[in-house]
Amino acid sequence: MGAMVARRALLALACAAPLAATGCRCCEPRLAARAEATSEMEAVVRAQEAAWNRGDLDAFMALGYWRSPELHFLSGGSWTRGYDTTLARYRERYASGGNEMGRLAFSELESRALAQDTGLVRGRWELTFSDGRTAGGLFTLVMRRMPGGWRVVHDHTSSGT
Amino acid sequence: MGAMVARRALLALACAAPLAATGCRCCEPRLAARAEATSEMEAVVRAQEAAWNRGDLDAFMALGYWRSPELHFLSGGSWTRGYDTTLARYRERYASGGNEMGRLAFSELESRALAQDTGLVRGRWELTFSDGRTAGGLFTLVMRRMPGGWRVVHDHTSSGT
Repeated sequence: MGAMVARRALLALACAAPLAATGCRCCEPRLAARAEATSEMEAVVRAQEAAWNRGDLDAFMALGYWRSPELHFLSGGSWTRGYDTTLARYRERYASGGNEMGRLAFSELESRALAQDTGLVRGRWELTFSDGRTAGGLFTLVMRRMPGGWRVVHDHTSSGT
Repeated sequence: MGAMVARRALLALACAAPLAATGCRCCEPRLAARAEATSEMEAVVRAQEAAWNRGDLDAFMALGYWRSPELHFLSGGSWTRGYDTTLARYRERYASGGNEMGRLAFSELESRALAQDTGLVRGRWELTFSDGRTAGGLFTLVMRRMPGGWRVVHDHTSSGT
Protein backbone atom coordinates (compact mmCIF):
# COMPACT_ATOMS: atom_id res chain seq x y z
CA MET A 1 0.00 0.00 0.00
CA GLY A 2 2.75 2.43 1.05
CA ALA A 3 4.81 1.39 -1.95
CA MET A 4 1.90 2.03 -4.27
CA VAL A 5 1.33 5.50 -2.81
CA ALA A 6 5.04 6.26 -3.14
CA ARG A 7 5.03 5.00 -6.72
CA ARG A 8 2.01 7.17 -7.57
CA ALA A 9 3.62 10.21 -5.94
CA LEU A 10 6.81 9.60 -7.91
CA LEU A 11 4.83 9.21 -11.12
CA ALA A 12 2.89 12.41 -10.43
CA LEU A 13 6.17 14.21 -9.74
CA ALA A 14 7.70 12.93 -12.95
CA CYS A 15 4.63 13.99 -14.93
CA ALA A 16 4.57 17.44 -13.35
CA ALA A 17 8.20 18.11 -14.30
CA PRO A 18 8.90 19.63 -17.71
CA LEU A 19 8.60 16.94 -20.34
CA ALA A 20 11.79 17.78 -22.16
CA ALA A 21 13.85 17.73 -18.98
CA THR A 22 12.64 14.37 -17.72
CA GLY A 23 11.98 12.54 -20.97
CA CYS A 24 8.83 11.20 -19.25
CA ARG A 25 6.59 9.53 -21.80
CA CYS A 26 3.53 8.97 -19.60
CA CYS A 27 1.97 12.40 -20.14
CA GLU A 28 2.79 12.80 -23.81
CA PRO A 29 -0.53 11.61 -25.27
CA ARG A 30 -2.54 13.75 -22.84
CA LEU A 31 -0.35 16.82 -23.38
CA ALA A 32 -0.48 16.34 -27.14
CA ALA A 33 -4.29 16.06 -27.06
CA ARG A 34 -4.51 19.24 -24.97
CA ALA A 35 -2.19 21.15 -27.27
CA GLU A 36 -4.25 19.95 -30.24
CA ALA A 37 -7.49 21.02 -28.54
CA THR A 38 -6.25 24.51 -27.70
CA SER A 39 -4.86 25.01 -31.17
CA GLU A 40 -8.12 23.80 -32.77
CA MET A 41 -10.22 26.07 -30.55
CA GLU A 42 -8.06 29.09 -31.39
CA ALA A 43 -8.33 28.26 -35.09
CA VAL A 44 -12.14 28.41 -34.80
CA VAL A 45 -11.96 31.78 -33.06
CA ARG A 46 -9.56 33.13 -35.69
CA ALA A 47 -11.86 31.84 -38.46
CA GLN A 48 -14.72 33.74 -36.80
CA GLU A 49 -12.60 36.90 -36.70
CA ALA A 50 -11.83 36.53 -40.43
CA ALA A 51 -15.50 35.94 -41.29
CA TRP A 52 -16.49 39.07 -39.34
CA ASN A 53 -13.89 41.11 -41.22
CA ARG A 54 -15.30 39.83 -44.53
CA GLY A 55 -18.66 41.17 -43.34
CA ASP A 56 -20.08 37.65 -43.25
CA LEU A 57 -22.16 37.49 -40.08
CA ASP A 58 -23.75 34.16 -41.04
CA ALA A 59 -20.33 32.51 -41.39
CA PHE A 60 -19.15 34.17 -38.15
CA MET A 61 -22.04 32.44 -36.38
CA ALA A 62 -21.93 29.12 -38.23
CA LEU A 63 -18.17 28.66 -37.84
CA GLY A 64 -18.13 29.42 -34.14
CA TYR A 65 -21.40 28.81 -32.39
CA TRP A 66 -23.36 25.72 -31.48
CA ARG A 67 -26.47 25.72 -33.67
CA SER A 68 -28.83 24.97 -30.82
CA PRO A 69 -31.56 26.56 -28.73
CA GLU A 70 -29.24 25.67 -25.83
CA LEU A 71 -26.55 28.17 -26.86
CA HIS A 72 -26.12 30.90 -24.22
CA PHE A 73 -24.81 34.39 -24.94
CA LEU A 74 -24.32 36.70 -21.95
CA SER A 75 -23.33 40.33 -22.40
CA GLY A 76 -23.62 43.13 -19.85
CA GLY A 77 -26.95 42.36 -18.19
CA SER A 78 -28.46 40.75 -21.28
CA TRP A 79 -28.88 36.97 -21.49
CA THR A 80 -29.63 35.59 -24.97
CA ARG A 81 -30.66 31.97 -25.42
CA GLY A 82 -30.43 30.09 -28.71
CA TYR A 83 -28.49 30.33 -31.95
CA ASP A 84 -31.19 32.12 -33.93
CA THR A 85 -31.78 34.73 -31.24
CA THR A 86 -28.03 35.32 -30.91
CA LEU A 87 -27.70 35.79 -34.68
CA ALA A 88 -30.66 38.19 -34.64
CA ARG A 89 -28.98 40.16 -31.82
CA TYR A 90 -25.74 40.47 -33.78
CA ARG A 91 -27.65 41.43 -36.90
CA GLU A 92 -29.59 44.14 -35.09
CA ARG A 93 -26.50 45.64 -33.46
CA TYR A 94 -24.06 45.41 -36.34
CA ALA A 95 -25.85 44.90 -39.65
CA SER A 96 -29.04 46.93 -39.68
CA GLY A 97 -30.29 50.50 -39.38
CA GLY A 98 -27.05 52.01 -40.62
CA ASN A 99 -24.93 50.17 -38.05
CA GLU A 100 -21.65 48.82 -39.33
CA MET A 101 -19.73 45.72 -38.27
CA GLY A 102 -16.37 47.45 -38.02
CA ARG A 103 -13.04 45.69 -38.00
CA LEU A 104 -12.69 43.01 -35.32
CA ALA A 105 -9.42 42.10 -33.65
CA PHE A 106 -8.95 39.48 -30.95
CA SER A 107 -5.90 39.65 -28.71
CA GLU A 108 -4.50 38.09 -25.53
CA LEU A 109 -6.10 34.76 -26.46
CA GLU A 110 -5.67 32.06 -23.81
CA SER A 111 -7.05 28.58 -24.32
CA ARG A 112 -7.36 25.74 -21.85
CA ALA A 113 -8.61 22.19 -22.31
CA LEU A 114 -10.98 21.51 -19.39
CA ALA A 115 -11.70 17.90 -20.35
CA GLN A 116 -11.34 15.70 -23.40
CA ASP A 117 -13.99 17.48 -25.47
CA THR A 118 -14.44 20.68 -23.49
CA GLY A 119 -12.36 23.82 -23.37
CA LEU A 120 -12.21 27.46 -22.49
CA VAL A 121 -10.97 30.38 -24.59
CA ARG A 122 -10.66 33.82 -23.04
CA GLY A 123 -9.35 36.99 -24.56
CA ARG A 124 -9.85 40.59 -25.52
CA TRP A 125 -11.94 41.91 -28.41
CA GLU A 126 -11.73 45.27 -30.14
CA LEU A 127 -13.89 46.74 -32.88
CA THR A 128 -12.69 49.71 -34.89
CA PHE A 129 -15.31 51.57 -36.91
CA SER A 130 -14.82 53.59 -40.09
CA ASP A 131 -14.98 56.90 -38.17
CA GLY A 132 -12.13 55.76 -35.91
CA ARG A 133 -14.38 55.04 -32.95
CA THR A 134 -13.52 51.85 -31.06
CA ALA A 135 -15.34 49.47 -28.71
CA GLY A 136 -13.86 46.56 -26.84
CA GLY A 137 -13.64 44.41 -23.78
CA LEU A 138 -13.20 40.79 -22.75
CA PHE A 139 -14.80 37.48 -23.62
CA THR A 140 -15.08 33.97 -22.20
CA LEU A 141 -15.99 31.10 -24.50
CA VAL A 142 -16.85 27.63 -23.27
CA MET A 143 -16.40 25.28 -26.21
CA ARG A 144 -17.32 21.66 -26.91
CA ARG A 145 -15.94 19.39 -29.58
CA MET A 146 -18.87 18.45 -31.84
CA PRO A 147 -18.99 16.21 -34.91
CA GLY A 148 -18.36 19.31 -37.08
CA GLY A 149 -15.54 20.65 -34.89
CA TRP A 150 -15.25 22.85 -31.81
CA ARG A 151 -18.22 25.14 -31.16
CA VAL A 152 -19.01 27.77 -28.53
CA VAL A 153 -21.79 26.58 -26.22
CA HIS A 154 -21.56 29.56 -23.86
CA ASP A 155 -20.25 33.07 -24.58
CA HIS A 156 -19.86 35.80 -21.98
CA THR A 157 -18.76 39.08 -23.49
CA SER A 158 -18.28 42.34 -21.61
CA SER A 159 -17.41 45.86 -22.65
CA GLY A 160 -14.92 48.21 -21.07
CA THR A 161 -11.40 49.45 -21.34
CA MET B 1 -21.68 -4.54 -37.55
CA GLY B 2 -25.13 -3.33 -38.57
CA ALA B 3 -26.65 -4.99 -35.54
CA MET B 4 -24.12 -3.32 -33.26
CA VAL B 5 -24.85 0.11 -34.75
CA ALA B 6 -28.59 -0.54 -34.36
CA ARG B 7 -28.08 -1.66 -30.78
CA ARG B 8 -26.04 1.46 -29.99
CA ALA B 9 -28.67 3.68 -31.61
CA LEU B 10 -31.37 1.97 -29.58
CA LEU B 11 -29.35 2.34 -26.40
CA ALA B 12 -28.73 6.04 -27.14
CA LEU B 13 -32.43 6.51 -27.77
CA ALA B 14 -33.34 4.79 -24.54
CA CYS B 15 -30.83 6.90 -22.61
CA ALA B 16 -32.06 10.12 -24.20
CA ALA B 17 -35.67 9.42 -23.21
CA PRO B 18 -36.85 10.52 -19.78
CA LEU B 19 -35.45 8.17 -17.18
CA ALA B 20 -38.69 7.68 -15.30
CA ALA B 21 -40.60 6.83 -18.45
CA THR B 22 -38.18 4.18 -19.73
CA GLY B 23 -36.80 2.78 -16.52
CA CYS B 24 -33.42 2.73 -18.29
CA ARG B 25 -30.64 2.02 -15.84
CA CYS B 26 -27.66 2.66 -18.07
CA CYS B 27 -27.49 6.42 -17.54
CA GLU B 28 -28.39 6.50 -13.87
CA PRO B 29 -24.87 6.72 -12.41
CA ARG B 30 -23.86 9.45 -14.88
CA LEU B 31 -27.07 11.43 -14.35
CA ALA B 32 -26.79 11.05 -10.59
CA ALA B 33 -23.16 12.28 -10.67
CA ARG B 34 -24.19 15.28 -12.78
CA ALA B 35 -27.07 16.16 -10.47
CA GLU B 36 -24.72 15.87 -7.50
CA ALA B 37 -22.14 18.11 -9.20
CA THR B 38 -24.65 20.84 -10.07
CA SER B 39 -26.12 20.78 -6.59
CA GLU B 40 -22.65 20.95 -4.99
CA MET B 41 -21.60 23.84 -7.23
CA GLU B 42 -24.76 25.78 -6.41
CA ALA B 43 -24.20 25.16 -2.70
CA VAL B 44 -20.75 26.77 -3.00
CA VAL B 45 -22.21 29.80 -4.77
CA ARG B 46 -24.96 30.13 -2.14
CA ALA B 47 -22.34 29.85 0.63
CA GLN B 48 -20.46 32.71 -1.03
CA GLU B 49 -23.64 34.79 -1.15
CA ALA B 50 -24.22 34.18 2.57
CA ALA B 51 -20.59 35.06 3.41
CA TRP B 52 -20.89 38.32 1.45
CA ASN B 53 -24.08 39.19 3.31
CA ARG B 54 -22.30 38.59 6.65
CA GLY B 55 -19.73 41.14 5.44
CA ASP B 56 -17.05 38.45 5.37
CA LEU B 57 -15.06 39.09 2.20
CA ASP B 58 -12.30 36.65 3.19
CA ALA B 59 -14.81 33.80 3.54
CA PHE B 60 -16.54 34.85 0.30
CA MET B 61 -13.21 34.37 -1.46
CA ALA B 62 -12.01 31.28 0.41
CA LEU B 63 -15.29 29.39 0.03
CA GLY B 64 -15.62 30.03 -3.68
CA TYR B 65 -12.37 30.75 -5.43
CA TRP B 66 -9.35 28.65 -6.30
CA ARG B 67 -6.50 29.89 -4.13
CA SER B 68 -4.04 30.10 -6.98
CA PRO B 69 -2.12 32.61 -9.09
CA GLU B 70 -3.92 30.86 -11.98
CA LEU B 71 -7.36 32.13 -10.96
CA HIS B 72 -8.81 34.46 -13.62
CA PHE B 73 -11.39 37.16 -12.91
CA LEU B 74 -12.73 39.09 -15.93
CA SER B 75 -15.04 42.03 -15.50
CA GLY B 76 -15.87 44.71 -18.07
CA GLY B 77 -12.52 45.28 -19.73
CA SER B 78 -10.49 44.41 -16.63
CA TRP B 79 -8.63 41.09 -16.40
CA THR B 80 -7.41 40.14 -12.91
CA ARG B 81 -5.07 37.19 -12.43
CA GLY B 82 -4.55 35.42 -9.13
CA TYR B 83 -6.43 34.91 -5.88
CA ASP B 84 -4.64 37.62 -3.93
CA THR B 85 -5.12 40.24 -6.64
CA THR B 86 -8.80 39.32 -6.96
CA LEU B 87 -9.29 39.65 -3.20
CA ALA B 88 -7.49 43.02 -3.27
CA ARG B 89 -9.80 44.15 -6.11
CA TYR B 90 -12.91 43.18 -4.14
CA ARG B 91 -11.54 44.84 -1.02
CA GLU B 92 -10.79 48.07 -2.86
CA ARG B 93 -14.22 48.24 -4.48
CA TYR B 94 -16.40 47.10 -1.60
CA ALA B 95 -14.56 47.34 1.69
CA SER B 96 -12.40 50.46 1.72
CA GLY B 97 -12.63 54.22 1.38
CA GLY B 98 -16.20 54.37 2.63
CA ASN B 99 -17.45 51.83 0.07
CA GLU B 100 -19.94 49.32 1.36
CA MET B 101 -20.51 45.70 0.34
CA GLY B 102 -24.28 45.99 0.08
CA ARG B 103 -26.66 43.07 0.08
CA LEU B 104 -25.92 40.45 -2.58
CA ALA B 105 -28.58 38.31 -4.24
CA PHE B 106 -27.98 35.71 -6.91
CA SER B 107 -30.85 34.65 -9.16
CA GLU B 108 -31.53 32.65 -12.33
CA LEU B 109 -28.76 30.21 -11.38
CA GLU B 110 -28.11 27.54 -13.99
CA SER B 111 -25.48 24.87 -13.46
CA ARG B 112 -24.08 22.37 -15.92
CA ALA B 113 -21.56 19.60 -15.45
CA LEU B 114 -19.10 19.88 -18.35
CA ALA B 115 -17.04 16.83 -17.38
CA GLN B 116 -16.51 14.68 -14.31
CA ASP B 117 -14.77 17.37 -12.26
CA THR B 118 -15.60 20.48 -14.25
CA GLY B 119 -18.74 22.55 -14.40
CA LEU B 120 -20.29 25.85 -15.30
CA VAL B 121 -22.57 28.07 -13.22
CA ARG B 122 -24.21 31.10 -14.80
CA GLY B 123 -26.63 33.53 -13.30
CA ARG B 124 -27.59 37.04 -12.36
CA TRP B 125 -26.19 39.10 -9.48
CA GLU B 126 -27.66 42.11 -7.78
CA LEU B 127 -26.27 44.33 -5.06
CA THR B 128 -28.54 46.61 -3.05
CA PHE B 129 -26.85 49.36 -1.06
CA SER B 130 -28.09 51.04 2.10
CA ASP B 131 -29.25 54.13 0.17
CA GLY B 132 -31.42 51.95 -2.09
CA ARG B 133 -29.05 52.17 -5.04
CA THR B 134 -28.60 48.88 -6.91
CA ALA B 135 -26.00 47.38 -9.24
CA GLY B 136 -26.21 44.11 -11.11
CA GLY B 137 -25.57 42.01 -14.15
CA LEU B 138 -24.57 38.51 -15.15
CA PHE B 139 -21.80 36.08 -14.23
CA THR B 140 -20.19 32.96 -15.64
CA LEU B 141 -18.24 30.69 -13.32
CA VAL B 142 -16.09 27.82 -14.53
CA MET B 143 -15.60 25.49 -11.57
CA ARG B 144 -13.34 22.53 -10.85
CA ARG B 145 -13.72 19.91 -8.17
CA MET B 146 -10.67 20.21 -5.89
CA PRO B 147 -9.69 18.20 -2.81
CA GLY B 148 -11.47 20.83 -0.65
CA GLY B 149 -14.59 20.95 -2.85
CA TRP B 150 -15.71 22.85 -5.95
CA ARG B 151 -13.86 26.10 -6.63
CA VAL B 152 -14.15 28.82 -9.26
CA VAL B 153 -11.13 28.80 -11.58
CA HIS B 154 -12.50 31.43 -13.96
CA ASP B 155 -15.07 34.17 -13.25
CA HIS B 156 -16.49 36.50 -15.87
CA THR B 157 -18.79 39.11 -14.40
CA SER B 158 -20.49 41.90 -16.30
CA SER B 159 -22.67 44.83 -15.30
CA GLY B 160 -25.88 45.98 -16.88
CA THR B 161 -29.61 45.75 -16.58
